[in-house]
Amino acid sequence: MSTEKLNKKKTIDLRKKHIGPSCKIFFSHDPIKIIQAKGQYMYDETGQRYLDCINNVAHVGHCHPDVVKAGAQQMEQLNTNTRFLHDNLVLYAQKLQATLPDKLSVCYFVNSGSEANDLALRLARQYSGHKDIITLENAYHGHISSLIDISPYKFHQLSDAELNPFVHVAPSPDVYRGKYRADHFDPATAYADEVKDIIEKVHKKGGKIAAFIAESLQSCGGQVIPPAAGIDAGGLFIADEVQVGFGRVGTNFWAFQLQGEDFVPDIVTMGKPIGNGHPMSCVVTTKEVAEAFMSSGMEYFNTFGGNPVSCAIGLAVLDVIVKEDLQGNALRVGQHLTDLLEKQKEKHPLIGDIRGCGLFVGVELVRDRLTLTPATAEAQEVIYKLKEQHILLSADGPHRNVLKFKPPLCFTTEDAELVVEKIDLILTGILKYASVFLARAPSKTGVSSMWPAGQNRPTRGSSPTLHSVICKF
Amino acid sequence: MSTEKLNKKKTIDLRKKHIGPSCKIFFSHDPIKIIQAKGQYMYDETGQRYLDCINNVAHVGHCHPDVVKAGAQQMEQLNTNTRFLHDNLVLYAQKLQATLPDKLSVCYFVNSGSEANDLALRLARQYSGHKDIITLENAYHGHISSLIDISPYKFHQLSDAELNPFVHVAPSPDVYRGKYRADHFDPATAYADEVKDIIEKVHKKGGKIAAFIAESLQSCGGQVIPPAAGIDAGGLFIADEVQVGFGRVGTNFWAFQLQGEDFVPDIVTMGKPIGNGHPMSCVVTTKEVAEAFMSSGMEYFNTFGGNPVSCAIGLAVLDVIVKEDLQGNALRVGQHLTDLLEKQKEKHPLIGDIRGCGLFVGVELVRDRLTLTPATAEAQEVIYKLKEQHILLSADGPHRNVLKFKPPLCFTTEDAELVVEKIDLILTGILKYASVFLARAPSKTGVSSMWPAGQNRPTRGSSPTLHSVICKF
Repeated sequence: MSTEKLNKKKTIDLRKKHIGPSCKIFFSHDPIKIIQAKGQYMYDETGQRYLDCINNVAHVGHCHPDVVKAGAQQMEQLNTNTRFLHDNLVLYAQKLQATLPDKLSVCYFVNSGSEANDLALRLARQYSGHKDIITLENAYHGHISSLIDISPYKFHQLSDAELNPFVHVAPSPDVYRGKYRADHFDPATAYADEVKDIIEKVHKKGGKIAAFIAESLQSCGGQVIPPAAGIDAGGLFIADEVQVGFGRVGTNFWAFQLQGEDFVPDIVTMGKPIGNGHPMSCVVTTKEVAEAFMSSGMEYFNTFGGNPVSCAIGLAVLDVIVKEDLQGNALRVGQHLTDLLEKQKEKHPLIGDIRGCGLFVGVELVRDRLTLTPATAEAQEVIYKLKEQHILLSADGPHRNVLKFKPPLCFTTEDAELVVEKIDLILTGILKYASVFLARAPSKTGVSSMWPAGQNRPTRGSSPTLHSVICKF
Repeated sequence: MSTEKLNKKKTIDLRKKHIGPSCKIFFSHDPIKIIQAKGQYMYDETGQRYLDCINNVAHVGHCHPDVVKAGAQQMEQLNTNTRFLHDNLVLYAQKLQATLPDKLSVCYFVNSGSEANDLALRLARQYSGHKDIITLENAYHGHISSLIDISPYKFHQLSDAELNPFVHVAPSPDVYRGKYRADHFDPATAYADEVKDIIEKVHKKGGKIAAFIAESLQSCGGQVIPPAAGIDAGGLFIADEVQVGFGRVGTNFWAFQLQGEDFVPDIVTMGKPIGNGHPMSCVVTTKEVAEAFMSSGMEYFNTFGGNPVSCAIGLAVLDVIVKEDLQGNALRVGQHLTDLLEKQKEKHPLIGDIRGCGLFVGVELVRDRLTLTPATAEAQEVIYKLKEQHILLSADGPHRNVLKFKPPLCFTTEDAELVVEKIDLILTGILKYASVFLARAPSKTGVSSMWPAGQNRPTRGSSPTLHSVICKF
């Protein structure tokens, strides 16, 4: 076990002094100091182990020895830019390409999901000659200027948010809480029609769509599983796989493949899990788009992107996914996790919806299954109580009421059982606390932050689970 | 020596198939396959050694053992995001801060110089509440959308370049070829006045300047050494140190410090050398700017930025710079290099200007020292002939006629002597070739691509060297 160099208070003090205050920390009132990690476990400075249910970056498990070895060996040999020939670059591009439809054959290696999505927009705009972009409500595509513009999840945080005139926001295809729900006769077509309407409006104003960008499954937006639909993108379709690619969904290597075998995006962007924590990412597109981009006359050079170390690490990650059948594990453990959660749903009225594919699972907490009042404070309570039990989970979505599971893919059935058991106890505690509190206190005393009076006995069964329909478990 | 996995032809074929054609390679007709590197040397697949005069990323020397060890050890322990406390993050921020004026105390860790400059623009715009940006002609600040807008070096490559209405381009403070030259009575003030004029024009139109961004020394723009001047930025001043920071200039750790001790930018961006090749970078600013940024209400989260591995590597780089006195070496070897080049200037009329600070040196080739006709083809000839001698150098600047020296800081006086000796031979050869050719061929036969008739006896002495004035060697 490694030791800490500073005591925790000193670490916190220095962080306050030298790190931008916009950079948030988990559990800010009592943050965790992690000094070591292995597989699906993280360890704090006292040696206390935490079960990690949230780190989709540590995709094949924290500090996987094969990945560490590949990185360390290449760091000793050579790490330079792609202006020289190197086998790692082309072997990695070839291997990555083999996971994708043939048409997607040209790679650009960059350093982050944000750099990837920005380049995707540039590719689409250059290819199409148009500027307008369609994005989804609650979408998150990155932290750089051009992506905040297309990320309602981000720009809605701004007090003075201004929609870029070239950006058009379509409803999030959320069949639980969205515009068209499971009780709609054809939500898939209804959502696709919304996109069609936007395209028509843009055309009427004399504009043209460059691209429709969408996360294959919305993550920050609330672990949304869209219904499969034939979408007219109006321009190029950019599938953002930064959060959900590389086998996480279990049935497929890429989440866009949930839309059917004949669905092929024009551009796919990758990130987080691609290097198991190493800063790297990739944009893959067609030969036609790549050639149009070149015809602009502007060179594309990325100092660190595609360097031999990043590619060695990327290759190791792909190898481990296959060698350890992590996609299969995601499918099996993900199924077990959702089965266990479904049973909890029968027991706990707070659970409004369980949805997921593989080890990408969301549990939406509501105070009322008919009105869908978000149980935001309760979701926070679950997260904090789980932390006390040394389990790391987070809540997200526009109402921060969706428990987000996206653990390293080496997560086991036992891990799933442990976290669901703890959630059961916590939800039982919340129910008891709310009952006692409601019995004792008048409704005006602020109980609303925990559980509004009169909403503690939600109606059951209003939201069918969707993962079984979409994900063909 | 490591061995190659594919033969060179196969590597080239796969690269053509799978890597975006906008990603250029050095010496495209006969590219180099590098498989190993150490210090200032790179090795190809046959074991042939190349002297590296261009890799400012491999700052403390390729594959420096201390940096490799720090990275490898931390990769084995933990690599996760900054939502957990970690000592590497705060210790690195503290150590980096110690190299800067006290006022610059708050860090944001990101993955590339491009991410850093984009964030710098966001910080400046949020702090000032304004949008307009002043940038310099020939500037290069990165490859993402928001930065192409402020990088004339990039957007001039576009056939359909359109200047963003919020971007204002001031003349590059190039006293050799720029608007105000060494023969001007006060070029520093003249360039500063150009900025003032822009500010006034923007104000008249009802706009306000958010920031003036400038590379502390322009690199792609032609290794430009600006005259020291008190600049009114009209907003925040962003010093882009991505190419030139971390001791390269020899006299100082940061190149903006060449402007005097009392000159303190509001934001400093770092990149390339910061991690000796590892994808990482940083933005440092004042507490006031950081607090204004937080007040927007938007969190800043960067998945990979500031992770324990990046910080371990960053710390090791800072340690090596001190331990091996690389800043001192840059000063001494840089001085030796420019002295040797000065002597070449006396001998070779093609050399129009030698300029530099430490191991950031430019040699501008011209066909005529009065008209300054750029010797672009000759510069290419030098680069190609040096490659035959297994020396890697590049040419840049708006006319691609400036030989750019920016080697790893472990570059030695012997290395400097070797490269200058070879340049001497090559320039002598070019002179002979041109003389023979001119004697044999009529001037209309295309000799202009090598050396126009009548311009082979340039006037001497029209451009004083500047580095001695600016850099206080």
